[in-house]
Amino acid sequence: MKMIEGGVCAAQGFTAGGVHCGIRKNRSKRDLALIYSSVPATAAAVYTTNLVKGAPLIVTKKNIADGKAQCIICNSGNANTCNANGEEIAEETCALLGAKLGVSAKDVVVASTGVIGQPLDIAPIKNGLNALVADLSEDGCARAAEGIMTTDTVKKEVAVEFVVGGKTCKMGGIAKGSGMIHPNMATMLVFITTDCAISSEMLDKALKGDIQDTFNMVSVDGDTSTNDMVVVLANGLAGNKVIDKEGEDFAAFMTALNTINVSLCRMIAGDGEGATKLLECKVTGAKTKAVAKTVAKSVICSSLLKAAMFGADANWGRVLCAIGYSGADVDVNKIDVAFSSAKGTIEVCKNGSGVDFSEEKAKEILLEKEIDILVGLNDGEFDSAAWGCDLTYDYVRINGDYRT
Amino acid sequence: MKMIEGGVCAAQGFTAGGVHCGIRKNRSKRDLALIYSSVPATAAAVYTTNLVKGAPLIVTKKNIADGKAQCIICNSGNANTCNANGEEIAEETCALLGAKLGVSAKDVVVASTGVIGQPLDIAPIKNGLNALVADLSEDGCARAAEGIMTTDTVKKEVAVEFVVGGKTCKMGGIAKGSGMIHPNMATMLVFITTDCAISSEMLDKALKGDIQDTFNMVSVDGDTSTNDMVVVLANGLAGNKVIDKEGEDFAAFMTALNTINVSLCRMIAGDGEGATKLLECKVTGAKTKAVAKTVAKSVICSSLLKAAMFGADANWGRVLCAIGYSGADVDVNKIDVAFSSAKGTIEVCKNGSGVDFSEEKAKEILLEKEIDILVGLNDGEFDSAAWGCDLTYDYVRINGDYRT
Repeated sequence: MKMIEGGVCAAQGFTAGGVHCGIRKNRSKRDLALIYSSVPATAAAVYTTNLVKGAPLIVTKKNIADGKAQCIICNSGNANTCNANGEEIAEETCALLGAKLGVSAKDVVVASTGVIGQPLDIAPIKNGLNALVADLSEDGCARAAEGIMTTDTVKKEVAVEFVVGGKTCKMGGIAKGSGMIHPNMATMLVFITTDCAISSEMLDKALKGDIQDTFNMVSVDGDTSTNDMVVVLANGLAGNKVIDKEGEDFAAFMTALNTINVSLCRMIAGDGEGATKLLECKVTGAKTKAVAKTVAKSVICSSLLKAAMFGADANWGRVLCAIGYSGADVDVNKIDVAFSSAKGTIEVCKNGSGVDFSEEKAKEILLEKEIDILVGLNDGEFDSAAWGCDLTYDYVRINGDYRT
Repeated sequence: MKMIEGGVCAAQGFTAGGVHCGIRKNRSKRDLALIYSSVPATAAAVYTTNLVKGAPLIVTKKNIADGKAQCIICNSGNANTCNANGEEIAEETCALLGAKLGVSAKDVVVASTGVIGQPLDIAPIKNGLNALVADLSEDGCARAAEGIMTTDTVKKEVAVEFVVGGKTCKMGGIAKGSGMIHPNMATMLVFITTDCAISSEMLDKALKGDIQDTFNMVSVDGDTSTNDMVVVLANGLAGNKVIDKEGEDFAAFMTALNTINVSLCRMIAGDGEGATKLLECKVTGAKTKAVAKTVAKSVICSSLLKAAMFGADANWGRVLCAIGYSGADVDVNKIDVAFSSAKGTIEVCKNGSGVDFSEEKAKEILLEKEIDILVGLNDGEFDSAAWGCDLTYDYVRINGDYRT
């Protein structure tokens, strides 16, 4: 498998685009994105577990109940959530786009991101559709990735090439993240495309399995959004024998999907609202997989640890504290902790108690942009990783005044 | 029942004091506090559920297993947690203090708060004991309250007078809070004294019952400390008939205890690290008590809502979002939300959707120091409250550089 360019347009038959249609006031910011497959694709999606669900999720869920879709439209600037007429607006978006593209409204995936509880006007979307469809092209991934950004500071796109049954397949994805990021069973907005042929059952299985170790292990602020959604479209144009059971081909597909997803997780966490650092907590030696995951997620979610990392302060007691309240079954007297970055690794805690270490060396390590928090539980064979970011002044600034 | 002065010294037979002994470098900061009852007292305590527990908690638990104690010693500046010799140090503290006061080491409650994972030297404690005991007086509550402060900016003390079986009883408490505040089954450090006569069984029952609706409903940052502890000493000097069963007397005791605890909760939340505002989420109309509590706690814990409150931004979508991911069984289409303060009340959401409201009026309300977030679930008869604070630049500053 190798990393390639092109994002969601890397796979055969996919084009994308993004325009400014007027949902956002800033005219230089694209606010409407489109991804299109030249042929109908197998589709799978996962959604937020938040009981308050964005209207677009409800409509999308209905539309891809048959395991098929051909395009994805997404606006930024308004979440279309907690609005009395939200579903109507989402349905109308699908109908209008379907008519323009000559596909059924039922083959449209619709998504929204932005402020909750402000009515979404259909007018800018309706008026922007001609320009949006005209913008579709094989080099349009960057424009689509821009169209779904909110407080994100960088576009998030990735693609890989892999082989299934002797055929070269491609898979790519884009994502938006930044704030309200603490996905549970689904995540922020992630759109993945592939030309690999795969049955809708196996696509669903692949997606639902992988997100447990990828997007569900990311947290920026502990808030699970109302609009989280990951969608994969697989159009089969690679010509491989359809993957319809477990085995070597499915394993190759899972590896590609995991590579795309881990890559997007790191981008989302590293570009968390206000973040200056990407944090990865790597847990090893857990009694069970569940323990490893609970510990990793608890550490990455600790506000106190996140603030310490912002200050490059090796305050490892906060790591122990977060493990202790996680609810996971661990032996606190066996826990080792180390901090690691491009500048090296430093052990700070052994068997649950502090060890002497150089504060100077620790500071040098923690001043880097990517920090690994290494937790050894010395209690079994399971491991896990979780991704997050530091807690900064800018997180407070961004969220103290988001709507204005 | 009426509010009175005196804190933990309000009840008959209790004296307190606080000195600087040298655990903290800043010589103007008291770092050692003592509360003493002239006669042995009935004692009850609750502790953190964090698996990583401070050594003092382990020693205290052993010491009050017989339901008796006579004094409380607490240092700030060092949590005495995750240290190989932590229990030895805590035991030695009890032995040294017991010898000075002429009480058994087993009747000493010991507590610590501060940085985790740094060895605690016995020398400053040993050297400070004479001055500490000499400082005991009936007006010493403020000095004891200062001695347990870490990043707290204000002392937290309260006292009430109440009647049990025709006898006037008094009860008072002090607390430290500020950061790493998200108690679970116990809380930060809270020391309560009363001269009411009550059996250890009923005292234990009163405390364990009340904290579920008081301290366990406070969150500053979602981090459950390793050293949380609430201790009550009841020395019986009020002369009332010993409370040894449920009934009118126990109810009067519970009301007094709840008043003390709610009062301290509000002080702790309002003085959360970096806080500029006290937030109270009042939930009504829940299907069950558990639903009401889960919703209130989830709203008060949302980083996004906390930041919005800092910015006086009526971003009620974040309230809905936090209710939705709380895991509580609610009907999202019945939820009403309003913001309230000394400047008035403004309804922002009705039946799960936004209503038109004056942003100007909302801003005026949210610029106050104490904000109520009113959530009507319209789904039953149960209610609950939770306390927290806003998320500010200062929280990040304080915790980005805590150890140095």
